[in-house]
Amino acid sequence: MSRRYAILALDRFATDAKTAHGVMRYGSDDVVAVIDPSSAGRSAREVLPYLESDAPIVADVAEALEYGPTALLIGTAPKGGGLPQQWRGAVLDAIRARLEIVSGLHEVLGSDPEFRAAAQAARTTIWDVREPPEVPLFSGDVYAIDAPVLLTVGNECAVGKMTVSLELVRAAKAAGRRARFVPTGQTGVLVAGWGISVDRVIADFAAGAAEQLVLYAASEGADLIVVEGQGAINHPAYAAVTLALMTGCAPDALVLVADPQRLQIDQYPTPTLPYAEAIAVHEQLLATVKPARVIGIALNTHGMSDAAARAEIERARAQTRLPVDDLVRFGPEPFYAAIAPALVKGRPRRAGAPA
Amino acid sequence: MSRRYAILALDRFATDAKTAHGVMRYGSDDVVAVIDPSSAGRSAREVLPYLESDAPIVADVAEALEYGPTALLIGTAPKGGGLPQQWRGAVLDAIRARLEIVSGLHEVLGSDPEFRAAAQAARTTIWDVREPPEVPLFSGDVYAIDAPVLLTVGNECAVGKMTVSLELVRAAKAAGRRARFVPTGQTGVLVAGWGISVDRVIADFAAGAAEQLVLYAASEGADLIVVEGQGAINHPAYAAVTLALMTGCAPDALVLVADPQRLQIDQYPTPTLPYAEAIAVHEQLLATVKPARVIGIALNTHGMSDAAARAEIERARAQTRLPVDDLVRFGPEPFYAAIAPALVKGRPRRAGAPA
Repeated sequence: MSRRYAILALDRFATDAKTAHGVMRYGSDDVVAVIDPSSAGRSAREVLPYLESDAPIVADVAEALEYGPTALLIGTAPKGGGLPQQWRGAVLDAIRARLEIVSGLHEVLGSDPEFRAAAQAARTTIWDVREPPEVPLFSGDVYAIDAPVLLTVGNECAVGKMTVSLELVRAAKAAGRRARFVPTGQTGVLVAGWGISVDRVIADFAAGAAEQLVLYAASEGADLIVVEGQGAINHPAYAAVTLALMTGCAPDALVLVADPQRLQIDQYPTPTLPYAEAIAVHEQLLATVKPARVIGIALNTHGMSDAAARAEIERARAQTRLPVDDLVRFGPEPFYAAIAPALVKGRPRRAGAPA
Repeated sequence: MSRRYAILALDRFATDAKTAHGVMRYGSDDVVAVIDPSSAGRSAREVLPYLESDAPIVADVAEALEYGPTALLIGTAPKGGGLPQQWRGAVLDAIRARLEIVSGLHEVLGSDPEFRAAAQAARTTIWDVREPPEVPLFSGDVYAIDAPVLLTVGNECAVGKMTVSLELVRAAKAAGRRARFVPTGQTGVLVAGWGISVDRVIADFAAGAAEQLVLYAASEGADLIVVEGQGAINHPAYAAVTLALMTGCAPDALVLVADPQRLQIDQYPTPTLPYAEAIAVHEQLLATVKPARVIGIALNTHGMSDAAARAEIERARAQTRLPVDDLVRFGPEPFYAAIAPALVKGRPRRAGAPA
């Protein structure tokens, strides 16, 4: 049975409620209301016109209940992964109204004594989407699958790697392929209804988790596997997760997702990588593991004028001689058509060459 | 109170009992016996002449008890981190003899129902060294410390990164510096009596764990911090841990530890990186995060003749124009003296440059 979500995004729906936006844009479950007093009275698409589905924005859980939700979705993923203290009351209100609680936070809500006791009393449940299953170490079995694997990588966190992956799958399906999206983060898992939050896996097993996800997609008959990347390869805090996906998925090709307006990694004194440097460092890292080329650049030109976006796309094309586009602004079909010839199967480089 | 260890290394002491070798060579606790029926009757130094301390090798736990141990140390760290099935009986024997169990395995022995019940019945305890504490996300605070940070990186797992780190600390201390070893793996933690097995930390927090370790060493007044690296940057399974240490420790300099006889990553179709490529990929990755150069190469020429070892050292020197030596074969002092002038403090590159 599918869920009917009320999404909790207190004072954040218009800004950084990435989970909310992803589920409203790409999810298969219904969203019946968004809870955010700072935008109450408007509709979700009035605030964010690009959303595919719409829902009323209400002030609190009590008001949301009028729209008949079956579950409360925690609609944000703040740094550190904790539940904002001022959100606890709303979660308790939802539990007492017997809504299922669905959370992609690092903090395990089902382990919170107060939430657990309340959920037991109300006979409802808490689903912590990020809790990873047990996975084996990376085995190399992924090298033997037939479907090409495309991994998105980015110049920063939260630049649209999941969105680009989903748009590419949509375009590939429209072109007749059995393409499959592989979710690796909490929003992707919520959107797709399966997957693993790889950032939550014990570091030694992160590449193994990525491999298992690709093997699963292959076992379901996909002829093109598009993996949502995480972080950025020069991110001081999250680069390890980025690299675990690069080695674990054993991609045949990469698409670089970049927001050209992000010159610095958020909260750190680290510049984002220019296009050419980003391409070089990703390709060099994979060269001895499973060679893969960056076959295109998907720009996130959110907030730029059409003219400025087109100019940046041209600049990136001239610099890199690769297909470049903004898949949200201009649709994914032209970009997919441009990269499709490069989506071919590669094999690991053979070992044993003298040093 | 310090421990008196019996080390469990069934049929593996002569080969891959890395934990046993590290504790016997560098640990501050006594080792009173090694349990390995395949070498029983000999002494540890008869099997491995390079060990600093010696102990009798015995056939089983019962025989080890004659030497008065207070603890049983699991002396190996197999792939996957589980306890070999055939070792369970020996662990139970030790618990029943009221020895403390000390384990660096991934598998949490204290969570094993049979072991836990036996330990409670015998009123002894199980210390799982790998269980990491809660750590914060990487903050960047590490950029502000005054002591230079040296990180060892390797061309493969198990090539001697811990050993080289410990030897460099020894040489630096002999030269009058307040050098400190920072342990990041189970053997290092056992040797030093503190630290975190970074490979066991949730991936998102692995860089934060590395940062906390360096901050702790700095707070203890170290004027040179030498961090034990893990894995290899092109290791299909473990590269993520390698990179977490690189970004999380924010090193000022790297030493490449390489076994020239390892042409392939164990169990994977991946060639190890030649010296020049390894230097380039590590330096390029850190260039935008916290620039650091590889300032020397510590070779592991185990099993080679002196002449062959010297020839390889000369070859590496000629190729890279860096100080190169085998610190175990020829002692750490000349190499330390050669790299000491390069152990200076760097700062992160400033962000904000246009792409």
